[in-house]
Amino acid sequence: MVRASIITIGDELLIGQVIDTNSAWMAQQLNKAGIPVLRRVAVGDSYDEIWQALDEESKHAPVILITGGLGPTADDITKSLLCEYFGGKMIVDEAALANVKYIFERVIQRPMLDINLKQAEVPDVCKVIQNKQGTAPGMWFEKDGVIFVSMPGVPFEMQGMMQDYVIPELSKRFQLPYISHRTLLTAGIGESYLAEKISAFETALPSTIKLAYLPSYGMVRLRLSSSGNNKDLLEKELQQQFETLQSLVKEWMVTNEDEPLEKAIGKLLIAKKKTLCTAESCTGGYIAHLLTSIPGSSAFYNASIVSYSYQAKEDLLGVDHDVLEKQGAVCEEVVIQMAKGALKRMQTDYAIAVSGIMGPDGGTIDKPVGTVWIAVGDKNKIVTKKLSFRFDRMRNIQLTANNALNILRIFINENG
Amino acid sequence: MVRASIITIGDELLIGQVIDTNSAWMAQQLNKAGIPVLRRVAVGDSYDEIWQALDEESKHAPVILITGGLGPTADDITKSLLCEYFGGKMIVDEAALANVKYIFERVIQRPMLDINLKQAEVPDVCKVIQNKQGTAPGMWFEKDGVIFVSMPGVPFEMQGMMQDYVIPELSKRFQLPYISHRTLLTAGIGESYLAEKISAFETALPSTIKLAYLPSYGMVRLRLSSSGNNKDLLEKELQQQFETLQSLVKEWMVTNEDEPLEKAIGKLLIAKKKTLCTAESCTGGYIAHLLTSIPGSSAFYNASIVSYSYQAKEDLLGVDHDVLEKQGAVCEEVVIQMAKGALKRMQTDYAIAVSGIMGPDGGTIDKPVGTVWIAVGDKNKIVTKKLSFRFDRMRNIQLTANNALNILRIFINENG
Repeated sequence: MVRASIITIGDELLIGQVIDTNSAWMAQQLNKAGIPVLRRVAVGDSYDEIWQALDEESKHAPVILITGGLGPTADDITKSLLCEYFGGKMIVDEAALANVKYIFERVIQRPMLDINLKQAEVPDVCKVIQNKQGTAPGMWFEKDGVIFVSMPGVPFEMQGMMQDYVIPELSKRFQLPYISHRTLLTAGIGESYLAEKISAFETALPSTIKLAYLPSYGMVRLRLSSSGNNKDLLEKELQQQFETLQSLVKEWMVTNEDEPLEKAIGKLLIAKKKTLCTAESCTGGYIAHLLTSIPGSSAFYNASIVSYSYQAKEDLLGVDHDVLEKQGAVCEEVVIQMAKGALKRMQTDYAIAVSGIMGPDGGTIDKPVGTVWIAVGDKNKIVTKKLSFRFDRMRNIQLTANNALNILRIFINENG
Repeated sequence: MVRASIITIGDELLIGQVIDTNSAWMAQQLNKAGIPVLRRVAVGDSYDEIWQALDEESKHAPVILITGGLGPTADDITKSLLCEYFGGKMIVDEAALANVKYIFERVIQRPMLDINLKQAEVPDVCKVIQNKQGTAPGMWFEKDGVIFVSMPGVPFEMQGMMQDYVIPELSKRFQLPYISHRTLLTAGIGESYLAEKISAFETALPSTIKLAYLPSYGMVRLRLSSSGNNKDLLEKELQQQFETLQSLVKEWMVTNEDEPLEKAIGKLLIAKKKTLCTAESCTGGYIAHLLTSIPGSSAFYNASIVSYSYQAKEDLLGVDHDVLEKQGAVCEEVVIQMAKGALKRMQTDYAIAVSGIMGPDGGTIDKPVGTVWIAVGDKNKIVTKKLSFRFDRMRNIQLTANNALNILRIFINENG
């Protein structure tokens, strides 16, 4: 089986200033094409470290994908290093030059600078991969049976090259096995409880199928993976095992596809021809953002009111002034009133309302940081739930959003 | 200088199912403590790959931090592998056992399972690091002068161990150099234009100070880094260079701290004792989410109306029905009306309003995907801007949010 190693280059990765999202995306594409990723390595903008990583990774895998370090500025040294590593000299690539000029004239619409022209220079020992999204060309090198592909670190530039050239080219070059995954998402059950429920299933799995548990923010993904050459047989066996697994975790299963909770909710609402709005205090628009991150969300989502202040809760949602004064914003009565006000003012079938204390400040002895009230319902019925988290602000926000969406899912399934 | 290597373990990292946020956080903490990160490596839940990574990384660096693979389920093999790697045998750690029992009784409040008890087993050749946030203990090993620390992959569990034990222990063990960074954030100028503006400065920098360009979503961070033993001298020299840099990019500088745009906006509003609301269509609550991700945001942020549907724009913000019918939701007149409606209904000093087509669907020839109208203003004045992006949905949403916040920043600075 052909395996790949991913090298990401940039000091920003080693001081923690940016989170590496490229590797995950590249790994998805490679896996889909039948090239498992063996390792991912991040190194800084350092001559020795990059050189050593090229040497080492080429011992691990015959396909090395590299991103980063191709910018026009002086801290980016990858291109000149690759030129030296593969024993070439720098030449101007005419197609890349035309592309740089095109991007400045038509897209950026600003005068081009000398350093931008340097973007069109490439080592004469590589095959140039044109960049439709930006100015830095990609480079395909081969040495001692190992393929090295260098791409920009800008996500959408790298993604364009991967889709248009790198994946198709690798698929032509190698006889790739078939890799398949099946993923389902559960909510409301912990990893170890889940493991106990399915321990007999796990033990009885054939050696060709691997089970993984992927917990995140109040949910656990279960993934079955298999690879081989007989696509039909593999898919049939994987599907059978996946059906068994689904029946075992049915009670907690949100979706049997590899999709986020909010997408599953959107599909459920569209199938039932229903609409949703949110009234958010502590999540500050995050639930609305999750829902609207799904393309086509206008089919099921109408509006949100983020009522952060007391005044906004009263003015925009009609929450009772006295209740706020006496009980504070984080209580059952307030989220019920928020949900009712939301249904009335935003005219949807369902509403989600949340109010809580996300931290780090604002907690009291009675209502410590992490206290959250959630109300979910329709014109006939509102259900509520109190939750207590004990994490940092962002994690509390994410957990509140996921729990609220899952409570809505259960409400819709139970109340139609 | 003592350097560290980070090994993250988990198949999910190699198939791209999760994005590795742990490495970035760990790198930040290590750098702050004076231990630069040399490399980061991700490997799967594979015996051979983990073993090889331990061997290889210990040749690169004397401190190896490891996360992941410590869960109670069968796919997690890190603990037993480490036991074998360091030639130990498994024993029950009494403190870890008490912690597992405590967490189940007091925090999770569900009966404990047999596999949970296994979490308290550790190799007898490690120093156990107690986990205050979860059930899997951390492990500190030493071999041939190299320190290996294994921690859970759950972010807040790992973070607790790093802060409470690992960083303090490493600081005691080594005489660490002083590392310092200065970061500023620019908006509204591209990386290559910025590079030309400061090329003389960059060339004249002393060899001890490094400049890095970190572009992201319409903004560029500039970072100066230096390390050494004389803290006072280093800080003085770095500060001088940083002041020069600030004066060179003054026109585009959002903040001279390493903080996100939304935090800088929040500080500006708090300093001026002003409040903000948003009226969001295409960003679907994302601007509200950015603002409320800042602790203490209730000091400057009151509310948002996410008016996704036409009906919501009319009902909640008072946008004129005829304008929507004739011109559609993505036009200058609609964002002006949204901003005015927002100021009136949410009673704040400033309002941001956005409407656009984020894709992948919904574009037309006149208004292609990526077309965005932004209005920003107060009761006296509204300014508008039309932008055209050409990216995917999430990137268009992020760019719209950053641009809107930056237009507000400029508006506040110009109009008081």
